[in-house]
Amino acid sequence: MNEFNIIRRYFDRPPKRALMGVGDDCALVRPDAGLDLAVTTDMLVEGRHFLPDAEPRALGHKALAVNLSDLAAMGAAPRWATLSLALPAADEAWLAAFSEGFFALAERHGVDLIGGDTTRGPQLVISVAALGEVPAGLALYRGGARPGDDIWVSGELGAAALALVHPEIREAALRLHRPEPRVELGERLRGLAHAAIDVSDGLAGDLRHIVERSELGALVHYADIPRPAVFAKLRDEKLERDCVLSGGDDYELLFTAARERRVELEALSRELDIALTRIGTLQKGASELVVLDAQKKPMTYRGGFDHFGGR
Amino acid sequence: MNEFNIIRRYFDRPPKRALMGVGDDCALVRPDAGLDLAVTTDMLVEGRHFLPDAEPRALGHKALAVNLSDLAAMGAAPRWATLSLALPAADEAWLAAFSEGFFALAERHGVDLIGGDTTRGPQLVISVAALGEVPAGLALYRGGARPGDDIWVSGELGAAALALVHPEIREAALRLHRPEPRVELGERLRGLAHAAIDVSDGLAGDLRHIVERSELGALVHYADIPRPAVFAKLRDEKLERDCVLSGGDDYELLFTAARERRVELEALSRELDIALTRIGTLQKGASELVVLDAQKKPMTYRGGFDHFGGR
Repeated sequence: MNEFNIIRRYFDRPPKRALMGVGDDCALVRPDAGLDLAVTTDMLVEGRHFLPDAEPRALGHKALAVNLSDLAAMGAAPRWATLSLALPAADEAWLAAFSEGFFALAERHGVDLIGGDTTRGPQLVISVAALGEVPAGLALYRGGARPGDDIWVSGELGAAALALVHPEIREAALRLHRPEPRVELGERLRGLAHAAIDVSDGLAGDLRHIVERSELGALVHYADIPRPAVFAKLRDEKLERDCVLSGGDDYELLFTAARERRVELEALSRELDIALTRIGTLQKGASELVVLDAQKKPMTYRGGFDHFGGR
Repeated sequence: MNEFNIIRRYFDRPPKRALMGVGDDCALVRPDAGLDLAVTTDMLVEGRHFLPDAEPRALGHKALAVNLSDLAAMGAAPRWATLSLALPAADEAWLAAFSEGFFALAERHGVDLIGGDTTRGPQLVISVAALGEVPAGLALYRGGARPGDDIWVSGELGAAALALVHPEIREAALRLHRPEPRVELGERLRGLAHAAIDVSDGLAGDLRHIVERSELGALVHYADIPRPAVFAKLRDEKLERDCVLSGGDDYELLFTAARERRVELEALSRELDIALTRIGTLQKGASELVVLDAQKKPMTYRGGFDHFGGR
């Protein structure tokens, strides 16, 4: 099977919102007037972000999910995506499962696959770019936080990192391999949150981006951070702290909002059936993150993930 | 040096036309009303598209150039790009030269680098996505050709493929390693050309895309195809034919236009100082490409490049 047939068979589905999808020199879209366009891209590399035997359907899902999570963190509605693959071989069963995983998530969120590139490479590399729309002026930036803001997080943190150590814990493995981007939550946070980021590198690392960009200090109460119940059974304090504070790949939304919006956010949590938890506050002062334990003593923690420094 | 420092030092230049560039969850741009957005992406893989010792400045140039060439083939003005890199190591000299090559071309065409991803990988992979703008309804498609159209090509064909066999021929090597995307020509062809494509896979393969999408037949006169003078000295007919008809990577524009536009196109050629040559015509009939030699006999030729089938 050649490159053009791979694209035709597995990746060419008629777009719903594009003037031209796959099959020309470029895709062509017509953004609506009054909307800003959010653009993001993520690359997943075999051996670095996933193992060579990773389940292809989950990979197709995750490659798009991490990009939709970035759009959600800007408050943008996902619209279009491109997908580039370097493949060791044209394995039809793999391609079928991968594209199924990709399109299942894409179609659930109304995302058109409008272009890409397929090439041979000794090792699997997946590069996705995604475009989303947000009403002009309403995008959520990392730097928008204000003094006195509550710090909120959706869902639970630490499951994906736990799966790296305990792959047999199904609930954790599911979070690592099939993260659910908080697309609807991101859109609903427009005008409600001041700043937002998705937790891809770990709470400590990602909150530090908000702190630095907003030029504020953050105080977080460790005990308040929502985490899977399984940690209580494992009774491994160090592992738990590493996963909850520094584990990446959860793709929850971390955001800040004024105290006055608490009631609205609690109502939104019930409406969307997504846990939203207050874990701390932002205040004027040095751009630092302080995490307090149950005895209100500052804890040590590891920073975010860095591909060139290791953890 | 860590991932964030690599981005900060080498890839974070303030955008001219974006509300948010590198440094948040997404970039944010505001497309002008009345413009369509063209989106394209290309992935370059070490060992497949370039050798491990490839000159980094030229690679940075080429990674963007091949995407700008796709935008030109749609008649779109380039505006924004993202760049994702899988890197074996954080080699500062390499990064400095690569980013210089990338930005030199980007700045020449007013392109903002607005996002990307940097990760470690055993082998160098470069993935670029580019966005361009074209007045609504004026994009050039592969399928827009009409019966009776002249077939035109810019510049010369065959030099890049020749460089793979004769890397010592400097003129050819330059075309392979530092292709010049026909950005201005693409924009000027709006309303003038009926269909366009860039010659990335070879004349025969790329013209076949126009032929199939437009549902027309093409007749090309081999002797009319412009090629570098060096072929006359080499006196290797088979090599010459393979390079000129089937060699990829030239990144010239191949387009079709009505006979009535010849005078305008010749004037445009003089104005831009870019050779524009008529090499054949399109007519009703089966979607086939016939290439005639000097004796008006049909020639055999190889199709386009296919990453999974070889040539």
